[in-house]
Amino acid sequence: MQLTAREIDIGTRTPTVLLNSTDASELGAHPLDRVRIQHGPDVATGIVEITDELVDPGLLGVTRQISHITGEVEIALASKPDSAAHITKKLDDIELEREEIDAVVRDINRDLLSDVELGAFVSGVYAHGLSRAEIMSLTESMVEIGETIQWDREPIVDKHSIGGVAGNRVTPIVVPIVAAAGVTIPKSSSRAVTSAAGTADTMEVFCDVSFSVSEVREIVSETNGCMVWGGAVNLSPVDDKIIRAETPLSLDPPGQVIASVLSKKKSAGATHVVIDLPYGEGAKVESLHDAREMAEDFTRVGTNLGMEIDCAITRGEQPIGRGIGPVLEARDVLDVLEGNGPTDLRSKSVRLAQILFDAAGVDETADEILETGAAESKFREIVGAQNGDPDVSSKDLTPGPHEETIHTDREGVVTHVDNKLVNELARRAGAPKDHGAGVYLHCRTRDELTDGDPLLTLYAEKREKLEQARTFWTENSPIRVHESGAVLIEQW
Amino acid sequence: MQLTAREIDIGTRTPTVLLNSTDASELGAHPLDRVRIQHGPDVATGIVEITDELVDPGLLGVTRQISHITGEVEIALASKPDSAAHITKKLDDIELEREEIDAVVRDINRDLLSDVELGAFVSGVYAHGLSRAEIMSLTESMVEIGETIQWDREPIVDKHSIGGVAGNRVTPIVVPIVAAAGVTIPKSSSRAVTSAAGTADTMEVFCDVSFSVSEVREIVSETNGCMVWGGAVNLSPVDDKIIRAETPLSLDPPGQVIASVLSKKKSAGATHVVIDLPYGEGAKVESLHDAREMAEDFTRVGTNLGMEIDCAITRGEQPIGRGIGPVLEARDVLDVLEGNGPTDLRSKSVRLAQILFDAAGVDETADEILETGAAESKFREIVGAQNGDPDVSSKDLTPGPHEETIHTDREGVVTHVDNKLVNELARRAGAPKDHGAGVYLHCRTRDELTDGDPLLTLYAEKREKLEQARTFWTENSPIRVHESGAVLIEQW
Repeated sequence: MQLTAREIDIGTRTPTVLLNSTDASELGAHPLDRVRIQHGPDVATGIVEITDELVDPGLLGVTRQISHITGEVEIALASKPDSAAHITKKLDDIELEREEIDAVVRDINRDLLSDVELGAFVSGVYAHGLSRAEIMSLTESMVEIGETIQWDREPIVDKHSIGGVAGNRVTPIVVPIVAAAGVTIPKSSSRAVTSAAGTADTMEVFCDVSFSVSEVREIVSETNGCMVWGGAVNLSPVDDKIIRAETPLSLDPPGQVIASVLSKKKSAGATHVVIDLPYGEGAKVESLHDAREMAEDFTRVGTNLGMEIDCAITRGEQPIGRGIGPVLEARDVLDVLEGNGPTDLRSKSVRLAQILFDAAGVDETADEILETGAAESKFREIVGAQNGDPDVSSKDLTPGPHEETIHTDREGVVTHVDNKLVNELARRAGAPKDHGAGVYLHCRTRDELTDGDPLLTLYAEKREKLEQARTFWTENSPIRVHESGAVLIEQW
Repeated sequence: MQLTAREIDIGTRTPTVLLNSTDASELGAHPLDRVRIQHGPDVATGIVEITDELVDPGLLGVTRQISHITGEVEIALASKPDSAAHITKKLDDIELEREEIDAVVRDINRDLLSDVELGAFVSGVYAHGLSRAEIMSLTESMVEIGETIQWDREPIVDKHSIGGVAGNRVTPIVVPIVAAAGVTIPKSSSRAVTSAAGTADTMEVFCDVSFSVSEVREIVSETNGCMVWGGAVNLSPVDDKIIRAETPLSLDPPGQVIASVLSKKKSAGATHVVIDLPYGEGAKVESLHDAREMAEDFTRVGTNLGMEIDCAITRGEQPIGRGIGPVLEARDVLDVLEGNGPTDLRSKSVRLAQILFDAAGVDETADEILETGAAESKFREIVGAQNGDPDVSSKDLTPGPHEETIHTDREGVVTHVDNKLVNELARRAGAPKDHGAGVYLHCRTRDELTDGDPLLTLYAEKREKLEQARTFWTENSPIRVHESGAVLIEQW
């Protein structure tokens, strides 16, 4: 069919052609079909959307990705991409071959899959899981298609937590300990998606976090470490596109997480990686069995990629540290670096750093580096290199002005502090957008309380956010207090 | 956050807001998140897309669905729709309750689900199937949300084939037989999606097929029957939206098919329905066991909706009739109505009509009505009522001028005539768009052939399409001929 193609800017991710419904019907094209567009020697493929309003009959709207082909064009129905058949195969619960995963990754990378197809891919991975061979294929495929950073030294160590634990801000303590020992640790972190703060949000309280790859190189060559936002570095574009499709449905299948983490670590040039796998009620992984299975997969797949992987299965049934929210977490971090702060946050950070030292054959003691203040100096050095104030002190880190402390109305023992609900509570108070908003915990599980003891303090930058958090508190039970010795939890 | 909202026409299906990436980051919004937009008392929800080009910081692009809210607006992140959680639950293989399916159907109907979410829904249904309770919920839910046609008489009979068999053009024979007996059969049919012709495409050779509901009522009150395109009647909008998401991935899960068919029949006011379930190698249903299971589900769910359902499990391992493609099928149909034509097409049509007579307590013999020419007269009457030529004859039905007959190059027995490949062969020749394009079969399975016997004739309206079909023929094996008595089919 002959049409006149014109660029039309509708901001789509995929190369799209807009057909008037009359032409679509004549061509036999349905929404999301592919068409081949030819103009002389130029050929492109577009995904069909049908409209009665945006283009008239005889015209073809083409989006920017394929707008080099305009004027008189010949269009014809094209077959579905091979990757669509592979996605259907995954939905049929048949293991995908390496080349099939390559085809899917390639088409995701080039934005050639529609959102329906992308949604089906993440659904297939979620519904049927990924075999270890599939995780390996997916990881390698994502590494090969993206950019990688090469370093002129070894080891390059790195750290990742699979998340789900509120307040778990160990990175800003692990990185300076490691860097202070002369070991390179170019750490990139995420911002919060569903939590009260990501490491990038917390570090933003101290300094900038958005740097290009060459700026990262500079910071690292100066200080041995960095704590930047991974989104700016953009090392694994396919992974980001997959996560975009998983987020609306809260899908987070283990195999995809492993491929996502290890592809990013490999692309960043890591040689030794410690993976923090918190497990417990309310964490992402709820049983020790599942945590061990993930550890095994992480290790095998990472080894296969030529990295040394150590997994730390950690307690994840309640938050780590006292503060939840960017400023409150920043304060905990600085306190630990200065020799005080929450003991669980300190002890976890030291253990993770020590695992990296042992793995990379570094003859240093993490505890000593923290004890002597070398880690604190290194932290201030990195903050300075990232355009922050190296002389920052705890009193600069003030949470929001609106606060309310909530007390227990009964005597008993704290049986549960729920990660998800505490995160959500801090978000209702304004975190992570309002850096000073969040929750400060006065208790942990197994604490014995008497009536009137404080449970937590809410902080907010805006009064109405404090009210919203207060309402969320009364409607949910982020902290459960039961009579000592009680066995019955709920009656149904 | 305060922004200035302006309408921006990007032709999306869903209510969409376009945010500049700076504002999105400030708001903590990710692509496909929901935001709540408020302007005075007006409130709406939009799905987030992020752009650096289409809108500047401080502005909010809103699509036509929500363009009643413009000017200074306050926007805030909104929670995911409940239906998103239900879709994730389905991916977890947990049975959905009636209210959960209602929520999904309601949100699909109002275009509130993104394509990623819609893709995940059809994937969950495909990967885990639907329980009978879920099929019932989905069917009822789709009926309740759409329009329904009420008739002032009974019975209202109907017929549906689940498809997959090339050339299976029984509808234009069943409808006039039934209507000639004085029984009402307001039949709507689809156009081809992956086949060489849908009933609507074949009927279009004779007459118009696009009519509104009130025009359908008029045709039916005049003739007792009709053969129109279902797309124009638009009885089950949710079903059409689900099919839009299934088509790109060729997903066609049985439970969804049953809900789709029965919701359309119920909405059309049917009281008695016969379902044609062809099974066999290369058909949609490949085993008798699966066909029986579908028959059981069709019957139970239909009965539950107050319809009488009869299922005919039919042979589906090869095409029915000789012609494949609109004109060639139209010629087979007219031949059968005039007392000649392919015997399989005739016999299948008569059996299906007789099942409807028996079910609806009609004291007539389908075979007699065809034999006496009453069905032919009725067919011509309906064609006239649908603005066609009632005096049409076989010689008016000429296939495309470019033809080539393909002969066997070996002696043997025809072991397989593949529905999908024959359909694709006819599509390469130009069907269904070129009405005269298609395939005429000279043989069927179990025919004994000698070297040089004709297998099929290709017809095309354009010479290059004939070449394309010829190439497809040589690269595939739509018809398999094996030495008589040979047992080995393929060696791997």
